[in-house]
Amino acid sequence: MPYVNIKITNEGATAEQKAQLIAGVTNLLKDILGKNPATTVVVIEEVPTDNWGIGGESITARRKRGQ
Amino acid sequence: MPYVNIKITNEGATAEQKAQLIAGVTNLLKDILGKNPATTVVVIEEVPTDNWGIGGESITARRKRGQ
Amino acid sequence: MPYVNIKITNEGATAEQKAQLIAGVTNLLKDILGKNPATTVVVIEEVPTDNWGIGGESITARRKRGQ
Amino acid sequence: MPYVNIKITNEGATAEQKAQLIAGVTNLLKDILGKNPATTVVVIEEVPTDNWGIGGESITARRKRGQ
Amino acid sequence: MPYVNIKITNEGATAEQKAQLIAGVTNLLKDILGKNPATTVVVIEEVPTDNWGIGGESITARRKRGQ
Amino acid sequence: MPYVNIKITNEGATAEQKAQLIAGVTNLLKDILGKNPATTVVVIEEVPTDNWGIGGESITARRKRGQ
Repeated sequence: MPYVNIKITNEGATAEQKAQLIAGVTNLLKDILGKNPATTVVVIEEVPTDNWGIGGESITARRKRGQ
Repeated sequence: MPYVNIKITNEGATAEQKAQLIAGVTNLLKDILGKNPATTVVVIEEVPTDNWGIGGESITARRKRGQ
Repeated sequence: MPYVNIKITNEGATAEQKAQLIAGVTNLLKDILGKNPATTVVVIEEVPTDNWGIGGESITARRKRGQ
Repeated sequence: MPYVNIKITNEGATAEQKAQLIAGVTNLLKDILGKNPATTVVVIEEVPTDNWGIGGESITARRKRGQ
Repeated sequence: MPYVNIKITNEGATAEQKAQLIAGVTNLLKDILGKNPATTVVVIEEVPTDNWGIGGESITARRKRGQ
Repeated sequence: MPYVNIKITNEGATAEQKAQLIAGVTNLLKDILGKNPATTVVVIEEVPTDNWGIGGESITARRKRGQ
């Protein structure tokens, strides 16, 4: 019955990539901890780059500098 | 002073339903635990069906199969 | 398939009270939004009063003042 | 390596204000706890006023009453 | 720069299993979305079975019934 | 009415430091966004180093290597 919340910046992840992520994380929890996939919940949240900071500045600012 | 975060898929919950949910959860916390409604915070987040997985697949995929 | 996270201060909620909260929130989501209880997940987190702030001060400080 | 999640209502915070918030919180964690800014992550989430409740009612309802 | 929060019940996951989970999720995000492992954060939270509900009842109650 | 969740590793933050963090974050939200301190909630969570990963490995493993 695990619950997994994945936050990423909203920079174009496709439905197919998100489906792979859901399947992959669910499998990891089954393989490593024996968790039941039927009750494993995965929620992906996509966050604007203005709203995500690391190193004290936004991802928007970092992308402008080429990082 | 509880904080409650409710995540649901974005499948058309109305403002009225969300208001009922906020009132209902706040009352439960007062009735069961004696928590003060004035400082009880409820935040509802609506998540696209591509971004929600259970059983290793997205809700989008489940809906297509009629689940 | 909703996911609900309830954070409260760790001031002695009993297992019975937590069971009532789980049942109550699950029923609310069924009654208001038609959500399936079988896949409704509720996680309660109990937080030390030193670690919870409101109004710019900790709950520990507020309790000392009789609030 | 702290992780900070800030939830506010979506009532017009600008990119500049969000950048100030990211910088300010990162500095606080360095100054108070000696945390390394390079691995301090700040994520800001903006929530519709229909989806945020306090005192058992939505912010939308409170705003209508002039609060 | 993804942030991943994994919540499981506190039923004896070992440090080794948690290390495998951290490595596995970080690799998935690199392989599927090209995310940089150096800034991928994974936080695992272990929740008492009294505090986790599914189907309207606690995991403690379910375990007593042999589920 | 902002809600702020701060996650740090459990490596000895004192009650005094946590009180400073609560006051500091509440002030930032007032100064930058005009948010009312009376309804600003700050919750600090302290996570064991085995349960926190960055760069694909746990903080426990990083600390052993002197990082």
